[in-house]
Amino acid sequence: MTALAKPLSRLSINQMTVKQLTLPELTEACMRLGVPAVGLWREPVQAYGVEAAAKLVRDAGLAVTSLCRGGFFTATDPGERARALDDNRAAIDEAAALGTDTLVLVSGGLPPGSRDLPAARERIADALADLAGHAGERGVRLAIEPLHPMYAADRCAVSTLDQALGIAERFPAEQVGVVVDTYHVWWDERAPEAVARAGACGRIHALQLADWVTPLPAGVLNGRGQLGDGAIDLRAWRQRVDAAGYTGPVEVELFNESLWARDGVEVLEETADRYVRQVL
Amino acid sequence: MTALAKPLSRLSINQMTVKQLTLPELTEACMRLGVPAVGLWREPVQAYGVEAAAKLVRDAGLAVTSLCRGGFFTATDPGERARALDDNRAAIDEAAALGTDTLVLVSGGLPPGSRDLPAARERIADALADLAGHAGERGVRLAIEPLHPMYAADRCAVSTLDQALGIAERFPAEQVGVVVDTYHVWWDERAPEAVARAGACGRIHALQLADWVTPLPAGVLNGRGQLGDGAIDLRAWRQRVDAAGYTGPVEVELFNESLWARDGVEVLEETADRYVRQVL
Repeated sequence: MTALAKPLSRLSINQMTVKQLTLPELTEACMRLGVPAVGLWREPVQAYGVEAAAKLVRDAGLAVTSLCRGGFFTATDPGERARALDDNRAAIDEAAALGTDTLVLVSGGLPPGSRDLPAARERIADALADLAGHAGERGVRLAIEPLHPMYAADRCAVSTLDQALGIAERFPAEQVGVVVDTYHVWWDERAPEAVARAGACGRIHALQLADWVTPLPAGVLNGRGQLGDGAIDLRAWRQRVDAAGYTGPVEVELFNESLWARDGVEVLEETADRYVRQVL
Repeated sequence: MTALAKPLSRLSINQMTVKQLTLPELTEACMRLGVPAVGLWREPVQAYGVEAAAKLVRDAGLAVTSLCRGGFFTATDPGERARALDDNRAAIDEAAALGTDTLVLVSGGLPPGSRDLPAARERIADALADLAGHAGERGVRLAIEPLHPMYAADRCAVSTLDQALGIAERFPAEQVGVVVDTYHVWWDERAPEAVARAGACGRIHALQLADWVTPLPAGVLNGRGQLGDGAIDLRAWRQRVDAAGYTGPVEVELFNESLWARDGVEVLEETADRYVRQVL
């Protein structure tokens, strides 16, 4: 453990931030830098083997703060819907096997030909009704992540913390809550009040950080800025979420082509440094 | 006038939709198709000459439904702010000369180094306080356009109809109102209530249409979809705005590289056809 270990005590590095690193490279680098936790993604974990991945991070002394991602609940086709629910049950089981209590949900956008966002949101709530019990049995919380409104059509019909919380509140807090990701909610003047409300009812299941930088890249998926490079007052957001009673990990999740093109360990070191300077 | 003239009675074509057409080509095509109105942009109008443009459209019997655009009010530098105000006074005068009562405002994003959206919004309100009287004297309404939250950092700190209306309501309705542009507000479940509120106080100064298509292009400026190509229920939005008491023009404003690459008259014909099929 380095001298930075204490300042980094809440830091978690989401695997996608340094997806150029293998899982053993990531765990090794986290141990060396004193980063105590990681957020994992299903695809690379499955490629490595769920049990092997669980053992790797456990042996490294790392916590797993979240598994990304379940969701995609909005299909109208019954077969497609059933497959999505089965896949989410598998994701819940994988989260439990990895020792994390949080499954992050990207809930799904409009099915082909549909223009009905409210109906899509209701199908998301219906799917959660089918899954919440299974999640509760496994000790896994389903965390609805509102995605930026620019993803409303094709990725997530839940665009604000208010909407996410409105769905989550239909279920017990230990089964369904929300993710606060600065990249998605920073622009929303109503989000601070929703953070306070979510905190008061114990439904902030994860805090994720990324900065907002422009111009956005084509497809708007892989332009999330390194902490401090953009328009978001990240420290203010961390303080706001803490003030709502949140004491959990602070996960940095960057999807960024230019970061992925660099040496992963160097990006990890930079990210830990930015976290100390911009977030603490 | 063609047989389509009556169905097209509220249609206005924003000049940017077919920016490959010169102003004389645009007016000629609109006359031939029975499109009774256009929305104009300052730069091409200035290049043609404001008085000459005014005469051209007047002689063609076309109404000018709006001038785009004023705004960019968020500078903190005093000299830059003064230049922006001067430029907006000129825009108001140009709108009056063109015979339109509506100047569309893109209010401005964060100045370099700032992370304070609420402060930027207050500077927008301050600038309007400086301009509203001049606009009123010229018979021009300042129309705050909330831009999609993906533009909050670099183009417009006003991201929702609620925010736009909250600022507009500080001024007389005949001086400051809002633009409802489907591309910017379609995702917002609170927008319908804001439309009703804006209509009730006579502050819907313009209705603009564009469809939402994905994937978004790099920079996210020029990917607005042709009517009917995307995720927005355009007819429902038109009906919603009408139900709020709006009886004005319905302006189609598409920024779309693939439409600009085609024959402009063909695009104009297609747009009028889509309007009849998707909006009426």
